Amino acid sequence: MIIREPLVPGSTIGILGGGQLARMLALAAGNLGLKCHIFAPEADSAAFQVAAARSVASYTDFKALKDFAQRVDVVTYEFENVPAETASYFAGQVPVAPGVAALQTAQDRIAEKTFIAGLGIPVAPFAEVSDQASLDEALDLIGRPSILKTRRFGYDGKGQTRIDGAKSSAAAWADIAKAPAILEGFVRFDKEISVIAARGWDGQIAVYDVPENHHENHILRTSTVPAAISPETAATARRLGGEVIAALDYVGVIGIEMFVAGEDVIVNEIAPRVHNSGHWTMDAGCVSQFEQHIRAICGWPLGSVERHADVVMTNLLGSEINRWRELAVEPGVRLHVYGKGEARRGRKMGHFNRLTPRQG
Amino acid sequence: MIIREPLVPGSTIGILGGGQLARMLALAAGNLGLKCHIFAPEADSAAFQVAAARSVASYTDFKALKDFAQRVDVVTYEFENVPAETASYFAGQVPVAPGVAALQTAQDRIAEKTFIAGLGIPVAPFAEVSDQASLDEALDLIGRPSILKTRRFGYDGKGQTRIDGAKSSAAAWADIAKAPAILEGFVRFDKEISVIAARGWDGQIAVYDVPENHHENHILRTSTVPAAISPETAATARRLGGEVIAALDYVGVIGIEMFVAGEDVIVNEIAPRVHNSGHWTMDAGCVSQFEQHIRAICGWPLGSVERHADVVMTNLLGSEINRWRELAVEPGVRLHVYGKGEARRGRKMGHFNRLTPRQG
Repeated sequence: MIIREPLVPGSTIGILGGGQLARMLALAAGNLGLKCHIFAPEADSAAFQVAAARSVASYTDFKALKDFAQRVDVVTYEFENVPAETASYFAGQVPVAPGVAALQTAQDRIAEKTFIAGLGIPVAPFAEVSDQASLDEALDLIGRPSILKTRRFGYDGKGQTRIDGAKSSAAAWADIAKAPAILEGFVRFDKEISVIAARGWDGQIAVYDVPENHHENHILRTSTVPAAISPETAATARRLGGEVIAALDYVGVIGIEMFVAGEDVIVNEIAPRVHNSGHWTMDAGCVSQFEQHIRAICGWPLGSVERHADVVMTNLLGSEINRWRELAVEPGVRLHVYGKGEARRGRKMGHFNRLTPRQG
Repeated sequence: MIIREPLVPGSTIGILGGGQLARMLALAAGNLGLKCHIFAPEADSAAFQVAAARSVASYTDFKALKDFAQRVDVVTYEFENVPAETASYFAGQVPVAPGVAALQTAQDRIAEKTFIAGLGIPVAPFAEVSDQASLDEALDLIGRPSILKTRRFGYDGKGQTRIDGAKSSAAAWADIAKAPAILEGFVRFDKEISVIAARGWDGQIAVYDVPENHHENHILRTSTVPAAISPETAATARRLGGEVIAALDYVGVIGIEMFVAGEDVIVNEIAPRVHNSGHWTMDAGCVSQFEQHIRAICGWPLGSVERHADVVMTNLLGSEINRWRELAVEPGVRLHVYGKGEARRGRKMGHFNRLTPRQG
């Protein structure tokens, strides 16, 4: 099912997942006069605090899903590990955006890499790994250092291990619990960047300026806009992002992580959702990625991606959220707190955008 | 009760009233990781859609108020006609901001004018009216044209009537249903402006740039920032606003309507709450009046009032809300829809801010 006419204010958006991304989507929807119904298994989900309705149930509780489907006008999700059978379940009942095909592509690193390479877009060399023997074959092909990743359910560095000169393939295979996997050649990149793009039901595409991302312990630490890359490289990245989102027949906001190596731009992975490296859009003068996603999935025209300020987004992880008092005082800093309970180590608790006048 | 230490994220703000102002307060609080509990009599209150908790009850249902007080860390309100006994009821149970004294001053036009005049700040000539005889005396004193207003519960031009040369005092007295009243001399103003200011529990004050306001049928139509007034006049207005908020020992955001007549700045009335003429702050680069109010009442440091763009805020009244499709397309326009049901004639359904680069 697709949306041909914009959902009018007062319509209800169903969101699978109740974390900070769902919360920020709900706040953006609220500003447009749209209601949100959050579906999440955790009774204390952060997004519940700012939404009109909630369902507390497992993603495979089909009775609860049916009830949810009947109460919403469109379904979206805040995370890529929505079970495919859950997303598929809505077919014929209510429009789902992004669609199931895009979700399935992004959920499987082999499908994802194959799809992107098929567009003629550079990716790291990769090979499928299903057992010890195929891992050894893949290592012969791709060499070391390389990264062994589970095909599914990896995020923030979970489900992956680096194979350098010293590491035995057996140890690596054990590291990822012998799950179906992909071996990827290690890319000696100069910079990590990402493309945040949006596409509507009508095919309209909008691509934000490119952030440069820094990770610590595989978790995003900062995103800086503009990235310190050449205008040509930025243009290449944005063009590739547009090609990916169009080829996926995607509706909504997508985050596409890329490497810059010399003049080359290499696509690393796709997140079929709003993306942490797009949080800078909340304060830099454009329509935020959250409002953009809401607009896209509801059949509204996409909003402006014009940026009025330079910006560094910094995640507040775990107890770093206690910095809120000092950050709230700083002029040019816009603070966002996610309303989560326990500030566990490494947990994304909030972020802030530090704005400076746009240079040039 | 006062707040000495900032309320930590996860705390709950109680809001009396469930309309668009409460809704925008709740969205701002949500962004800071704070929860909102909305108390309103109408089961379909717009603010419920974006808040963590709700109470549907009369403002004089003290059992419901007690329950509410026990669930929140601070109480505020979105409208000035909260019954004083309701606001007073919370004394000793939970901090209330703005405080009861400021609320009572703003609720009674005689108390309000007397208070402001007592600060040495210009107001229109005024006299108390309690019956036909005192109205005639007041007319002798103040002359015509003048405005007869009920002392209490007026808003958007309701509860007031103009007495020009042709009108009998008896007709005017009947117009306002013989309620306790104030007669105000008609001010031949050049412009209507307002001051939106905030004050914290610690006495810190922040004053936004001054909007110029245009009304139609006594309802705000547009607010334009900056106002087309001299820098000296703007400075005078902001200074007077600061004097009023300090003298009221006020905590939160206040809206103070003023007239500009030649070089003179005359205070017209006080709204002890976030104010329609402050909606431009949502998109012009500063901390919005809604976040500012939340910061102030929660004991947080006040945010920046620095403005990055010029802006015209336009209210969408009644069926004008149907313009959302065209407005959503326009670059430089930021749309806000309130999620209300029926688009009754004159009802405030949304607004939009049209931004242009800051001049000078």
